[in-house]
Amino acid sequence: MNRHTVGDYLLARLNEIGIDHLFGVPGDYNLQFLDHVIDHPRLAWVGCANELNAAYAADGYARCRGAAALLTTFGVGELSAINGVAGSYAEYLPVVHIVGAPSQTSQRQGELLHHTLGDGDFNHFLRMHQEISVATSILTADNAAEEIDRLLCCALTQRRPVYLLLATNVAESPLSPPAAPLTFPQQIDRQQLAAFSDAAETLLAAAGSVAMLADFLADRAGQQARLHSWLAEVPMPFATLLMGKSVLPEWQYGFAGTYSGASSAESTRVAIEQSDVLIAIGVKYTDTITAGFTQQITQSRTIEVGLHQCRVAEHQFDGVPMAAALEVLHRLARQYGQGWERGIVAPPQLEASLSDSLTQCTFWQAIQDFLRPGDIVLADQGTAAFGAAALRLPQGARLLVQPLWGSIGYTLPAAFGAQVAQPQQRIVLIIGDGSAQLTVQELGTMLRDGQNPVIFLLNNAGYTVERAIHGAQQRYNDIASWDWTRLPQALNVNSQAQSWRVTQTVQLREVMALLGETPHLSLVEVVLPQDDIPPLLASVTQALHQRNSR
Amino acid sequence: MNRHTVGDYLLARLNEIGIDHLFGVPGDYNLQFLDHVIDHPRLAWVGCANELNAAYAADGYARCRGAAALLTTFGVGELSAINGVAGSYAEYLPVVHIVGAPSQTSQRQGELLHHTLGDGDFNHFLRMHQEISVATSILTADNAAEEIDRLLCCALTQRRPVYLLLATNVAESPLSPPAAPLTFPQQIDRQQLAAFSDAAETLLAAAGSVAMLADFLADRAGQQARLHSWLAEVPMPFATLLMGKSVLPEWQYGFAGTYSGASSAESTRVAIEQSDVLIAIGVKYTDTITAGFTQQITQSRTIEVGLHQCRVAEHQFDGVPMAAALEVLHRLARQYGQGWERGIVAPPQLEASLSDSLTQCTFWQAIQDFLRPGDIVLADQGTAAFGAAALRLPQGARLLVQPLWGSIGYTLPAAFGAQVAQPQQRIVLIIGDGSAQLTVQELGTMLRDGQNPVIFLLNNAGYTVERAIHGAQQRYNDIASWDWTRLPQALNVNSQAQSWRVTQTVQLREVMALLGETPHLSLVEVVLPQDDIPPLLASVTQALHQRNSR
Repeated sequence: MNRHTVGDYLLARLNEIGIDHLFGVPGDYNLQFLDHVIDHPRLAWVGCANELNAAYAADGYARCRGAAALLTTFGVGELSAINGVAGSYAEYLPVVHIVGAPSQTSQRQGELLHHTLGDGDFNHFLRMHQEISVATSILTADNAAEEIDRLLCCALTQRRPVYLLLATNVAESPLSPPAAPLTFPQQIDRQQLAAFSDAAETLLAAAGSVAMLADFLADRAGQQARLHSWLAEVPMPFATLLMGKSVLPEWQYGFAGTYSGASSAESTRVAIEQSDVLIAIGVKYTDTITAGFTQQITQSRTIEVGLHQCRVAEHQFDGVPMAAALEVLHRLARQYGQGWERGIVAPPQLEASLSDSLTQCTFWQAIQDFLRPGDIVLADQGTAAFGAAALRLPQGARLLVQPLWGSIGYTLPAAFGAQVAQPQQRIVLIIGDGSAQLTVQELGTMLRDGQNPVIFLLNNAGYTVERAIHGAQQRYNDIASWDWTRLPQALNVNSQAQSWRVTQTVQLREVMALLGETPHLSLVEVVLPQDDIPPLLASVTQALHQRNSR
Repeated sequence: MNRHTVGDYLLARLNEIGIDHLFGVPGDYNLQFLDHVIDHPRLAWVGCANELNAAYAADGYARCRGAAALLTTFGVGELSAINGVAGSYAEYLPVVHIVGAPSQTSQRQGELLHHTLGDGDFNHFLRMHQEISVATSILTADNAAEEIDRLLCCALTQRRPVYLLLATNVAESPLSPPAAPLTFPQQIDRQQLAAFSDAAETLLAAAGSVAMLADFLADRAGQQARLHSWLAEVPMPFATLLMGKSVLPEWQYGFAGTYSGASSAESTRVAIEQSDVLIAIGVKYTDTITAGFTQQITQSRTIEVGLHQCRVAEHQFDGVPMAAALEVLHRLARQYGQGWERGIVAPPQLEASLSDSLTQCTFWQAIQDFLRPGDIVLADQGTAAFGAAALRLPQGARLLVQPLWGSIGYTLPAAFGAQVAQPQQRIVLIIGDGSAQLTVQELGTMLRDGQNPVIFLLNNAGYTVERAIHGAQQRYNDIASWDWTRLPQALNVNSQAQSWRVTQTVQLREVMALLGETPHLSLVEVVLPQDDIPPLLASVTQALHQRNSR
């Protein structure tokens, strides 16, 4: 198989942009392409138990590596994955979705093939994916090189999914390897950038206090390192929202907590809302992370930096990429930032409790003590994510959450993908029982691959976050009762995983003390009261309930 | 809560058309509607572990009851379910998909809500569903009664899914209960029907031998009873394809086997292809069930009956519903069918083997002996479905398979849904290990609800059907190795389920002898050779491999 094909070209490009793994599920329309994946020297196949989980895993990988690729089969496979890809679209992760399709001959003849709707129309699913992709393409032998390059550039510059339909025979068509590296023309409007710089300088030069609020788009644009060095050079109060938590160095002087509008700790709220100037970087004020749009941000005192445009007070500047804008602001901070340190407050402390019985309060205190530098923490939508909002993350630790798309069950496969991306870092997964049931089969995939994440399974007997919104005692918020500690042994024939069930705070801390030592997957079932929720979640769910009744 | 709402109206109509259960997963945009479901005296809520499984369960329910309903939440929920609904569309099952959406106020204001793409457009997912629904509607307080009635009529007459977007506040809006029963204007073109009758009579009066081939659309149109009594009155050779298997009375005199084009048993092929006239009822010749379009059906000698139109040789007759056409043909069969019995052949026998070791061959022999009248058998796409094609089903037994859409893992949740629909009938689920991993969490739901299906889990260490198509030894066809017998205890805290692992034919038969007696879920892990496939599947997969290379 020395002949170079369209499939090989695609794999070469994926590998070139930093993708070393392809997640997915085999199907008969992608098997021949898979032969080329298996033969590729630097790009590995990672089979998942189902396609939704594969999409979630790819999303988790993209959060750690900057981009990811997903392979599914026509119809059944791509539609099973589509909710995961939609999450990547909503939360700005460049996932390249490759779909193996029937041969062009079969498509032209409109054959009644399996995995189709039986109507001879082979574009239904492409049209569905257009709603959640920044670009889609039907590859042919003739357009493949150009289209693959175009789509990968779209994905990387817009930080969102693209969709490639790859017919079996097209994948096998001859195509020379890429002749030159993929290039990304940087689109900067120099005039707008200069105007932005002037406007920002005017505001910052006159400011007595300046605070920074950064969120997920700063992470997606890869600006962590710049922001960390900026904050080390020029101390100033800074916060993130939950969605982008860990993009700023929380272990560093100046950390003001996690901002969530009116539900913030008072000191956090004051630091962000009452500074003379706020620099808001890559922020979207969505409902759950602002407790229902309760943020009080004054536009006339705010410098906003988006992925491709900025704003100073009421003036917008287009064609200014985030990196260029931050370079300007970093320079201005060095120039004018001597006094910005004055606004720094001590970060809020976790609510304290000495209760013997396990509660959300004692659980999160224990987690705070358990975390180590460099941990990758995944907290599922629900009590887990909103509890994690109050943590202070240690150096180099990352938090992966999905509060905009909010698809429960997401984090379990995403943890698998994150571990594939970063095999040397410890994965700490915190997920509720209701959520884990949606995607549990990927625990088997973790075990198959010898991964050793630490999983805290919060057993509060149902959908606690839904109970908090509506129907606290309704049986639709109950779930099937599983024996979680038996699962690892069922999902692997030779599992060396360890499981514990803890009902007391002291037990939890004892188990935590053991966890550092094991090279195997650890599952801790944490039994919590059914109606106990973290304080932030209480105000968020109250806001959501009111909005649903309007 | 005595005020009657839009939600109540919808539930009343669903119940009126024979739907007693609503499958789904709660989410904050559907919780208030769910209060009304819980309060409904005759329609029960059936929570599933995830939305894809809920869609599969609804599909299985619809196959047993004629229609089903599915409730998901906006964005994340509906997109997780969409592959299941697409299967219902491809295979003609009327599933009413109700999606709880943000309030109209939030939508109008374009708010950045969770479960959206964050762009203020609330119609992305509706547009995606338009590809796989015969009708969609955004309900309002004003249009609800009319639109609900319109959509349910569409679903029932076209036998396919419809999509209802139900904003939180619309569900709670006041609406009087239905004033009159739902009516379905029967669309018959009397002139066309008469012409069809004449043409069919001309052909049948001159025929020396006549055979019947019926398939899945005859089942979807609810024509089983008529066909059974026809075949009891007028003996003639008859067969189905795999997709509609069990729509004809296989235990009755005249059964000629399962037709699959060139891969049919020779006697079956001759009976169907070489009769003077073939009456083909509700048939679609799709690739997998015809071993790659190898059917040899001569149009000039064929009477075709579709859902809403018919054909006699080259002449098509529109506006003739299947029921009306079959009434005509039944009458003609009584009149001219005295000699049709001549074409009857003995049905093909299962391939025999006396091997001690378990093989596909000895497994299917044992299943044939195990089946009882009235069983509902579900066989997943793969070795299971193609093996089941060779069975002769006992009286009143049904087979549920999904060979057109072919989404592996479908049958496990569908078995759950079928058992909800028919609690008194025995459910026999036959599914491969690779397939079961996709949807395994619904085993927990079966256990929660005390269901007692018999599950044969075919453990052949991976995707055997894919191996047969391509990449027999490739590791992408391997899967994680699970300890299946431990699963029921992990997925229920108080499981009384029984599990066995069998590697010998005699063990399998011993276990089968015990199975009749247990009131609990039974899981039999059947260890089979990795490369062993039923004979029909061998020719099907060869055809698919060739077509993918064109």
